[in-house]
Order: sequence, then structure tokens, then C-alpha cells
Amino acid sequence: MSTSNTVQVTIADIGRIAQSALEKAGCNTAHASAVAKVMAGADRDGCASHGLFRLGGYLAALRSGKVDGAARPSVTRLAPSVIQVDGHRGFAPLAMAKARETLAPIAREQGVAAAALVNVHHFSALWVDIEPLVEAGLAAMCFTAYMPAVAPAGAPKPFFGTNPMAFGWPRSDGTTMIFDQASAAMARGEIMIAARDGHELPPGIGVDSEGKPTTDPAAILKGVQLTFGGYKGSAIALMVELLACGLIGQPFSVEAGDEDNRDGGPPRGGLFLLAFDPARFGDPEGWLTHSESFFERLTALQGVRLPGDRRAKNRARIDREGTRLPAQLWDDALRASGE
Amino acid sequence: MSTSNTVQVTIADIGRIAQSALEKAGCNTAHASAVAKVMAGADRDGCASHGLFRLGGYLAALRSGKVDGAARPSVTRLAPSVIQVDGHRGFAPLAMAKARETLAPIAREQGVAAAALVNVHHFSALWVDIEPLVEAGLAAMCFTAYMPAVAPAGAPKPFFGTNPMAFGWPRSDGTTMIFDQASAAMARGEIMIAARDGHELPPGIGVDSEGKPTTDPAAILKGVQLTFGGYKGSAIALMVELLACGLIGQPFSVEAGDEDNRDGGPPRGGLFLLAFDPARFGDPEGWLTHSESFFERLTALQGVRLPGDRRAKNRARIDREGTRLPAQLWDDALRASGE
Repeated sequence: MSTSNTVQVTIADIGRIAQSALEKAGCNTAHASAVAKVMAGADRDGCASHGLFRLGGYLAALRSGKVDGAARPSVTRLAPSVIQVDGHRGFAPLAMAKARETLAPIAREQGVAAAALVNVHHFSALWVDIEPLVEAGLAAMCFTAYMPAVAPAGAPKPFFGTNPMAFGWPRSDGTTMIFDQASAAMARGEIMIAARDGHELPPGIGVDSEGKPTTDPAAILKGVQLTFGGYKGSAIALMVELLACGLIGQPFSVEAGDEDNRDGGPPRGGLFLLAFDPARFGDPEGWLTHSESFFERLTALQGVRLPGDRRAKNRARIDREGTRLPAQLWDDALRASGE
Repeated sequence: MSTSNTVQVTIADIGRIAQSALEKAGCNTAHASAVAKVMAGADRDGCASHGLFRLGGYLAALRSGKVDGAARPSVTRLAPSVIQVDGHRGFAPLAMAKARETLAPIAREQGVAAAALVNVHHFSALWVDIEPLVEAGLAAMCFTAYMPAVAPAGAPKPFFGTNPMAFGWPRSDGTTMIFDQASAAMARGEIMIAARDGHELPPGIGVDSEGKPTTDPAAILKGVQLTFGGYKGSAIALMVELLACGLIGQPFSVEAGDEDNRDGGPPRGGLFLLAFDPARFGDPEGWLTHSESFFERLTALQGVRLPGDRRAKNRARIDREGTRLPAQLWDDALRASGE
């Protein structure tokens, strides 16, 4: 990105402006704060595609009336180890905060516990969603679907969502190892950014609307994204649909596509969250030093980087220096915030 | 496979001969029967690489004394939703049967439950291990590591095991949808065949002995295999290590490699098994018809095949006709069985 049409802003600025814009568009303070926090959290970690870049979509979903900016998430315990958090058609972050807060003590009590988030509109990075659980010493997994965007192995058209999954593991220094990856070969947000900036993509990311391989991000956005790793990535995408939709009674990606009003904001859907207390799995004293010795041997290999390492480095730098955003994005956000 | 050096046998024959051979080598009847059943189950589904082909490795592990053919698996409830099944250095199938039997009612009671299998020697296909749980109406996931075989993304040498994961979902006709996939991009045997036939491989299968990407199968055989889907498959392999080893206090693949006596049989290690009762996740009446309608829309797409479909077709045919095995393999098994 050239710096001529960018501006340097702090993460606190991003959070504040995003929150104001969301409140002006109809979010109550609790929702606006939670949503602004996940966007600022992504920008803080150097992930522009899930940062303030998403503000327009969030605002569109409020303006169209698809999302209720004042919805109050409610919690039901469906079974000793299962909770349901109903977002009542609000954005996901507030429901996710409620889910984490309720789930953590249940995971410690039961060993493993699951949260089904339903009737939420999810548009954020999953690592931001699970990081507080992992910082609290739990291992966690999270899955969510979307709208048809990715072709199942062998198929000529979109059917699966981008279907990210995240997995997190606590580190001995209080930080985390978290990966968060779409079942698509590339996250849709990354393709959107490449299209915006006029960048070519590597091969294997997707095909155009005629089904022909292309490296043009705009053509792929009109065509079909492919899963990572061929049929194996396609199986992961299928599993995500069954956990985040079929198991918890939420629309599959293809159903969300039928139902959504196409306002550019996130569709209604579910998230599936699992938390494990490593102290309850047979090695309460040893698991942390054992896994640290594993990470040590792994990272001693030439060329290896742990998932999340780049985000951690970005975070340290961006906390210090702030980050550069496209001037247009920042201007739009300022205007929406009324500043 | 040419038929000149093969023999046609029934699945019942495979099970009977395998059981006899295992008993003669020191397994008690319970172990011999459980192990023979998983081998026969793989041959029944047309997966020769996990069928009677594995008998030699099982026998070697008994003869070297690495595995105790009379070990009695014991169960401990570590937490309300967590059990540990200690195999006491026996083969995995008997411990797995005990885990399934104990875990199923706990999953129904708690909604979700986990089993940590420890001190087992696992050498079989995971779909055979989880299929009875899924036939009983539970969704299930299973993970296990092995010995160093696959390079982490960016690394020049093996560190992760083959690290398969399986996921199963119940179907309305009492059958299952199960995928079971290694984290490696391609089976080693397929790479050997490509080398023999002088075929180039697609990118992403492996690197040469210098750690450079190559599509030359011979160079990969001297180098190292890669995970499927680049760094995303590598993240899956890492997750498998943390769940099946770090969480439950079992040797990571690299530690199993240090410890194993290299007798050709399976190393000591752990398995991590999760079971979910779909009736406890918020859509007790709808989940099955909802997921069936999803499968219907998915399989209506041109070119799509559900995971496990080929196995199901093989099973129907092989139940009827039996299967062909290499004559040498069958002769060796007969000799080992004393018949």
C-alpha cells in the first residue's frame, strides 16, 4: 500500500471511531463497544481484512434492519456441558463475550464444554473471539460458516461458506498459540483487499464465473473460491458446516445465502465453540511444560514459525506505532462517526 | 494388482486368520479379536493399507515385547465429561472399544464428552474406531499422532506424525458420514508408485533433501513429505499433536520417535476422542432432517462425492464377493496363524 493515500492512526482511535459510528447507526453502547473491540483487535494484529475495513458491512446490516443493534444475548444451559447463547439477531461479539464468560467456569467444572451461539451475525476474526479463553488457560476450538463462497471438492459452484476454524493453546508466559484459518484457500477478506488494491493472487485460490482458473481477485469474487488442500480441505469445510450449523440448528451456508438480504453485512448464523481445561485431562502438573518443550523443539527447526507469531510481532509494533489505513476508509469511518 | 499372485478371501477368513495369528504371538482372545476386527474392517472397506497388511507390524510389536498382548485397559473418570482409558501398553482396539462403551452414555448425559486413550499402540484406521459411536447416533471426532513422518510448513525435516483426524456424523438410514484423513498431502506408497512410473507430482507434496520444493517423486522420497494444503494442513497437524499428546500427557510424535524400538509395529501413544449428542445442542427434533436436506443439496452438485461413499460401495461389494490380497501376504498370515 503506498503511503500517499493512507493515514497513520492508533488502535485506540480505531476503536473510538468505530464505536461512535456503530452507535450513530443504531447499536447500543454494549454492542458498539464489543464490535469496535474486535475490529480494533484485528487491526492491532495487522489483519486489515478483519479490521476497520469491516465497518461498512456492519453499518449496512444495521441500516437495512437485518441486525438489531440493541439485541440482548440470552444464555440457556442445554446440558451439563453445553450452553446455548442466543444473540436474538444481534452482532456476534457481545454474544461471544457472554459465551466465553459462561463457558469458562463450566469447562473447568466439566473438563470440556461447548457453546452453541445462535442467531448471531458474525463478521470478525475468530482468534480475537477465542483469545481471552486461551489467555485464561483453556484450550479452545471455534468454527463458523458463512454464505456460499467456496466450492466443495469437484463441484463447479459455491456451496460451503469460507468456514473458518480456530484452535488455541495456552503458553507458559500467559500468551497464546492460536491459529485461525478459513477452509477456503484464502480468506475472502484477503481477496477483497487484493481486489481493492489491484493485486494479483497466487494460483489455486479460485476460478472465475466460467469455472476457469484465474489470479484476478475481482474475477474470483464473482466466481468461486477453492478450499485449501483439495478434498481434505473440503472435508474440513464440511465438518464446519455440520458443527456450526447442523448440530446447533442454524442455517447452513447455502441456507444463509437463500435467506440473507445481501446488504453487504454478515448473514444470520451460528458459531460453535469448544473449551477444554488442560488440568482435567490426566496430566494436570505436566501439560504446560510438556507442550512448551514441544514448541521449543518445533521452533528450533529451521524455517518454522508458530501460528500467531506474526500477529504477536505486529501487535507489539502497532501498539507502539499505530497502523496505516487507507485514507478513504478512515474518512468514511470519521464521517459515519460524526467527528 | 495382477491377479496371478493374489488370492480371493472373505472378510470372515481375514478376521479368523488374523485372530489366530495374534493369539499365537501372545495376544489374549479379547485383544486378538479386537485387533483382527479393525484389520478386517479396513479390508472390508477396500483400504488395503490398514487391513491385513498391518498384521506383520502387530506381530513384530508382540514379539519384541513392546506391546503386552494381555494388557487390561482401565477406565478413570477424570472429570464429569472426561474419561481416561489406560491401555497399559496394549494395542489400541480393545481400549478403544472400552472407551466407546464408556463414553457414549456420558456424551448423552453431558451433551459432549471426551476420552483420552493413553499408553496404547495404535495402528488402525480411525473411521473403523469411531464408526460404532456414529452408528449409535453420536457425532464424533478422533485424533492421533504417530512418529516423525511429515515436515511442519517451512521446515526441512520430519517432525509431525502422519496425524490423522476423523469426523463422523450420523445419517437418517442408520449409516454414517465419516472422513478420516492424514495430515500428509499424499500417502508414501503413492509417491513410490509415481517414482517407479516416472510421473511428476503436483506441487505441495514434498521437498527434496535440501528442503527445496519439488514435484519429482524420487527427490521427495529422499527428502521429506509435506502436510496437505501448505501451512493450513500444518496447523491441523500441530493441533493433532496438542490434543492427542500434549493435552492428555502422551508422547508427541517426535518423542514417540525417540522412544520407539523400531520393531515395525506401532509406537506407544495416545488418542483423543470427542463425542457429541446432537439431541443436546438446541435442535433435538430437527437436526437429522436438517442435515439430511443439506447432504441432499450437496450431493446434487455435479462432481461431488461425500466422504466415505467409496468405502460404503466397497463394503457392499466385498461383503458379497470377498477381496483379493497379495498371495505372499496371505501365505504369511496363514503361516503365522498355524493353519
